[in-house]
Amino acid sequence: MTSGERIAVLGTGVIGTSIAMAAARAGDEVAGFDADATVLAKAAERSGLRPEASLAACVKRSTLVFVCTPVQSIPRLAAEALVEAEDAIVTDVASVKSHVLIEVEAAARPQDLDRFVGGHPMGGSERSGPEWASASVLDGIVWVVSRGARTAEASAGRLAAWIDRIGARPVPMDPARHDRLVAMVSHLPQVASTALMGLAATEESGEPDILLLAAGGFRDLTRLAASSPHLWSDILLANRDAIAEAIDLYVKRLTDMRDMVQSGLADEVERSFAYAKQARLSLAAKPQVKTGVAVLQIPVPDRPGALADLTAALGAARVNIEDLQIVHSPEGGRGTVHLTVAAVVANEAERALAGRGFEPVRLA
Amino acid sequence: MTSGERIAVLGTGVIGTSIAMAAARAGDEVAGFDADATVLAKAAERSGLRPEASLAACVKRSTLVFVCTPVQSIPRLAAEALVEAEDAIVTDVASVKSHVLIEVEAAARPQDLDRFVGGHPMGGSERSGPEWASASVLDGIVWVVSRGARTAEASAGRLAAWIDRIGARPVPMDPARHDRLVAMVSHLPQVASTALMGLAATEESGEPDILLLAAGGFRDLTRLAASSPHLWSDILLANRDAIAEAIDLYVKRLTDMRDMVQSGLADEVERSFAYAKQARLSLAAKPQVKTGVAVLQIPVPDRPGALADLTAALGAARVNIEDLQIVHSPEGGRGTVHLTVAAVVANEAERALAGRGFEPVRLA
Repeated sequence: MTSGERIAVLGTGVIGTSIAMAAARAGDEVAGFDADATVLAKAAERSGLRPEASLAACVKRSTLVFVCTPVQSIPRLAAEALVEAEDAIVTDVASVKSHVLIEVEAAARPQDLDRFVGGHPMGGSERSGPEWASASVLDGIVWVVSRGARTAEASAGRLAAWIDRIGARPVPMDPARHDRLVAMVSHLPQVASTALMGLAATEESGEPDILLLAAGGFRDLTRLAASSPHLWSDILLANRDAIAEAIDLYVKRLTDMRDMVQSGLADEVERSFAYAKQARLSLAAKPQVKTGVAVLQIPVPDRPGALADLTAALGAARVNIEDLQIVHSPEGGRGTVHLTVAAVVANEAERALAGRGFEPVRLA
Repeated sequence: MTSGERIAVLGTGVIGTSIAMAAARAGDEVAGFDADATVLAKAAERSGLRPEASLAACVKRSTLVFVCTPVQSIPRLAAEALVEAEDAIVTDVASVKSHVLIEVEAAARPQDLDRFVGGHPMGGSERSGPEWASASVLDGIVWVVSRGARTAEASAGRLAAWIDRIGARPVPMDPARHDRLVAMVSHLPQVASTALMGLAATEESGEPDILLLAAGGFRDLTRLAASSPHLWSDILLANRDAIAEAIDLYVKRLTDMRDMVQSGLADEVERSFAYAKQARLSLAAKPQVKTGVAVLQIPVPDRPGALADLTAALGAARVNIEDLQIVHSPEGGRGTVHLTVAAVVANEAERALAGRGFEPVRLA
């Protein structure tokens, strides 16, 4: 049942085209449609998908339809695809699920809704355009599969089987729960970062020197604030209730910490920090590094080539870098690299670095 | 007046010993004292400072005394040094200033207070112990010079001249203002990170899958949460009012954003994000990169050696890496590097990377 699907991709941007490439790699037949003929031609060239001139022509005879357009156009296109391909499962790839399912339920014919499944591949590229597509961006990623009120269990199962077959990891999840969890671990960090950068920028108008004192920690926390305003405005508004709830919980926690500090409760502050530290250290750099990770702190001179020496030492030892962060002294001078590697290769990494004159210190 | 100071360092950990090394490099005579004889011996070996067996012997005949001990012991040691070295300027290096100045004013004789100056070198190492000291960690850093109510202008001027002479950048700043600014750009990011990690960890007890959905943004925002609980508890409590105020402003901003999202004000949300994005992009990776920076986004395969190829290409082109962040797909697969370089060398960096088969895209 799960081999030899006939895939239709509506919207052949970076995600749609990556899906087309992963499907083709797995032996599926793939057709694509995009309202922008240039984008469609590029997608066809990159992925080998069969370009079609209309939605109807694209989904005709398909067994699995992926709607990969911006959130606002999903309901209309999904409803149309459900009509045109009367035996196909239809799914989307948006990063919010309840909103999409409700809108699709409003737009589609009730008798078609058993064949619509919400989906969210948790990965892919920050770029747009088919030229950045690749089957491998989907390798091993978590792909949330969300059933709406009327989605048939068999439809969700069919999508999950396909996800598994192309090498990703299907995770069934209730749409409201998905939205609540991504609000907390994906949307809230974005809001926290943007709010911090916005606050410092506002303060700067009265205190031009404030960013003179901004160190590496500030830069870490505000990196996300450079994300696309339009994209994020769409996401936040489509998940507004879950985001409001996540911000409320965060504000509560900040306020509790504020009160502990203001009241001089040293032990409670320290306990609260120790709890978060423990949680952060046990957070694997990437979830598939099942055996855990180690973090090495390595001083490096701030000169061209220093990081090249460090990464070359690891590359030569066949140690993969799970994560790497440069921590500068606030105003330059020597820097420190925080390097995350799989725990099983931490000793090898330490030896390789020491062999090139670095002095790694293991933090975790 | 500013050459040939006789320096005394009280507390010869990493900062004290780095100061001793920078002073020696500039031609000053340096004596040191530490309650821990082993630490003192190591500091003497590393920096060439003259070890002394007591505070009195150390500061005798000195012209400039640096108190480099933990916050709690500064007032007592500063008061003693002011008595023992009756012509010397005495200063500290703590990361909070009002609290220290108030405590010193309470501990010292009033007639000595014109010679005490608050100081905060904004840099140095996250390590402890003289073996990690280096004169170069102080090169070019901002070193805040804060006068208390009774500090003579001449004393502050003398310290500032010395800071300038050893190659750092003296920045005179009122202690309350210093504390307010570091609360915002140094202490608040720490609290924001710890609160976010603590919140997610608390949620995880009811939702074991939550961190499965945590992507690169969450990891960025929570990296600081692995900092030392004891160190941070001390800092926060010594700057409690400024921190409470910074948290209040942050909570206000988060709450405003929450209300905008909840009310569906798309334009306002987008404007707020655009404001923060603009501010983030104009925040130089390091303040001494006066000509601005460029950020390149570069897809890299997630395999050993990939980052080594990238950094080697830059090293060969003599391009210094100002900042580098690995953005993994949430669950692995291909990653993306966000690379910050000085704007003046951005074209060179792009060329060097393209020459090795990378496809950098310039974001800013």
